[in-house]
Amino acid sequence: MELITLAHGSGGRITQEIIQNLFFRYLGNPLLNRADDAAVFSTSSRDIAFTTDSFVVQPLFFPGGDIGKLSVCGTVNDLAVCGAQPQYISCGFIIEEGFVQAELIRIVKSMAYWAKKAGVKIVTGDTKVVEKGAADGLFINTSGLGVRRRNLSLGIDKIRPGDKIILSGAIGEHGIAVLSKRKGLAFESEIKSDCAPLNKMLINVLDNTTGVKFMRDATRGGVATVLNEMVLTGDFGILLREKEIPVSEGVRAACELLGLDPLYIANEGKALLVVEPSSEEQVLKLLRQSEYGRKARAVGEVTKDLANKVCLTTAYGARRIIEMLSAEPMPRIC
Amino acid sequence: MELITLAHGSGGRITQEIIQNLFFRYLGNPLLNRADDAAVFSTSSRDIAFTTDSFVVQPLFFPGGDIGKLSVCGTVNDLAVCGAQPQYISCGFIIEEGFVQAELIRIVKSMAYWAKKAGVKIVTGDTKVVEKGAADGLFINTSGLGVRRRNLSLGIDKIRPGDKIILSGAIGEHGIAVLSKRKGLAFESEIKSDCAPLNKMLINVLDNTTGVKFMRDATRGGVATVLNEMVLTGDFGILLREKEIPVSEGVRAACELLGLDPLYIANEGKALLVVEPSSEEQVLKLLRQSEYGRKARAVGEVTKDLANKVCLTTAYGARRIIEMLSAEPMPRIC
Repeated sequence: MELITLAHGSGGRITQEIIQNLFFRYLGNPLLNRADDAAVFSTSSRDIAFTTDSFVVQPLFFPGGDIGKLSVCGTVNDLAVCGAQPQYISCGFIIEEGFVQAELIRIVKSMAYWAKKAGVKIVTGDTKVVEKGAADGLFINTSGLGVRRRNLSLGIDKIRPGDKIILSGAIGEHGIAVLSKRKGLAFESEIKSDCAPLNKMLINVLDNTTGVKFMRDATRGGVATVLNEMVLTGDFGILLREKEIPVSEGVRAACELLGLDPLYIANEGKALLVVEPSSEEQVLKLLRQSEYGRKARAVGEVTKDLANKVCLTTAYGARRIIEMLSAEPMPRIC
Repeated sequence: MELITLAHGSGGRITQEIIQNLFFRYLGNPLLNRADDAAVFSTSSRDIAFTTDSFVVQPLFFPGGDIGKLSVCGTVNDLAVCGAQPQYISCGFIIEEGFVQAELIRIVKSMAYWAKKAGVKIVTGDTKVVEKGAADGLFINTSGLGVRRRNLSLGIDKIRPGDKIILSGAIGEHGIAVLSKRKGLAFESEIKSDCAPLNKMLINVLDNTTGVKFMRDATRGGVATVLNEMVLTGDFGILLREKEIPVSEGVRAACELLGLDPLYIANEGKALLVVEPSSEEQVLKLLRQSEYGRKARAVGEVTKDLANKVCLTTAYGARRIIEMLSAEPMPRIC
């Protein structure tokens, strides 16, 4: 079993070997293979979106994904929700000495697969190795660059009372999948992470309707956190209808068992969209054309009252405030 | 003494607090403060350079710098040596639970100072916290975006026999500074890291001469590694003159004591330039105008023979081959 050594991060001959035999082999493209300190290219537009995310998920492999898939999809989705078509990705690996090379290969192959699926190229990278005990296996940073239509205007400041809140699918799957794997929990049906690249679905919506005001992917802190961030900066509230929020039977059962609220559980393949009322049907139709949006639902609306609050009408007709997450129910979910 | 907790990485209320009170406070600018999943902006050109680097240096504070300064300068320099003017930087923090908040503030302030000095804006970021023991204090990833003149053409493929090798200053200072601090070594005169943003100096050279063929900053693996990477892909060799290579007395003494060769020691503020013979004097003059290039020297030349080899003429007139670094003399130098 070959292991990663400190020499793999030295910048010398052994680093060159891993770059050639692993990164170029699986992720290679003309820009990456130039091995310059930076990738140099011409974009199709001067309107750019730029994002970064570090991934520290534990375990590295979980039902429905792995840290490699997650790192590509996470960054792709951050660009897409800002209305940009993701194009170029960087990857920075921090590897613990003694990490199993075969696992690294599996992870890099997964990155290659999902980058291709999302239509992005990994064009620049960096590898560091730290001594045994100085990191927990592997951390990956991906940053990304996308191009954006010039006339596009998305933002919390565009949101108005009456706008509809659309959720692209069922919630809580990523967090529960990681948590079950970590704790060795077995549920009746295996819950898989929803980790997915949403760019094609979301850009298709933007290209075919004008009514989208704002989009966000509901990752750390879940749907509750994203909605709370929205109302914090705006002069409006949000009212959700519990019965409209898609939650799979498996996630619901797991949440009951673990005492968790699916609204706070991380997703890695779900977007929240705020749209004009007149665009609701069209946006739902467009989302449902994608394999990642089949269960898209309108789950609530923007209200003039309830300012700065997220409120939920429960199945029994009661209302409760959905606060911002304050404690951490599950660290290292992404 | 306030410490970083897992809640700071939860994505919830406590994460918002640290984002507002630390990152926005010291690094803030209109793009960053929008707190979108990606920063959206228009660049002055469609010709872009994109790079990434993760920093795992230990200790986090060392003579002449800290991980924050290093993370900004490292990414700025990677863009500059590709001929791009750095403009936008991302930062991803991976923090170990229990990290002292005051140290994080010091590091973020250092990033702010050096970003300003280099003329770049930090426009997007990410914070993850891992449990105690799962990381070694703090790791930082910075990715960067720069714009490049359209007609600029730099590359190893431009290098021809007869071209001159110019070094922007004395070598080995960063590696020795970090190592002395780590091992608690005291030398007669304190050796400070040369960590510095080289973009203004290098872009000034490019803007005022046409003879530059290739540039690289000599970081991990030092000058020897950069030159070996150059000759690997080209049909030429390199001959260095030992007596021309600037090494400070302090670094020389430390290297002798530690049995290290300054050619392999990491620099964080030194560039190697390959230039046409007719441009040598002009490039040296331009470099020496900068505070970071006062000791710039022509240290060798590109040769037709010695193909794929880096060779050194010693002070005594002997020749020796400078191999690529194979073992790691000092991990976590950057």
